Amino acid sequence: MNEDNSVFIGEKPFMNYVTAVVMQFTTKGATEVVVKARGKFISRAVDVSEVSMKRFMDNTIEVKKIKTDSEEFENKEGKMVRVSNIEITLAKK
Amino acid sequence: MNEDNSVFIGEKPFMNYVTAVVMQFTTKGATEVVVKARGKFISRAVDVSEVSMKRFMDNTIEVKKIKTDSEEFENKEGKMVRVSNIEITLAKK
Repeated sequence: MNEDNSVFIGEKPFMNYVTAVVMQFTTKGATEVVVKARGKFISRAVDVSEVSMKRFMDNTIEVKKIKTDSEEFENKEGKMVRVSNIEITLAKK
Repeated sequence: MNEDNSVFIGEKPFMNYVTAVVMQFTTKGATEVVVKARGKFISRAVDVSEVSMKRFMDNTIEVKKIKTDSEEFENKEGKMVRVSNIEITLAKK
């Protein structure tokens, strides 16, 4: 699967992301879409996946895999901080 | 596995939850611990899991399963809102 099937969740309006996911499946014919997020946007990635599946795709797609990870970074104050990330793979049933 | 092995993530200090997870594995001899959260606390559940695994349990535990779901509720204004949840099952390797 190529990177075009990824939707990276940030601070744009919520429905932008839902539309992006749904469009991948409907008009672009994707069989899988990966919803990705880091840090505080992880909750939003789950919301986008749930709303896409249940409200828009009428349960014709499902969660195929969920992967979490984290990386350590040095922040502006020189302190090491760990930032988590998530990848939710949605697939046609 | 009984419900005692669940850690429900809320707004208490972050390390309370990490300690709860680590204690289940170390002093209570659990082989699995389920980290649960709803709504905005989902990001925090991933953070708690990652920090518990990588910083405290020295990679002796791993993510066995991640499950997401959502439920619709009527909020105070009478509007239907969907709230997502996550269950991260951590297990001894």
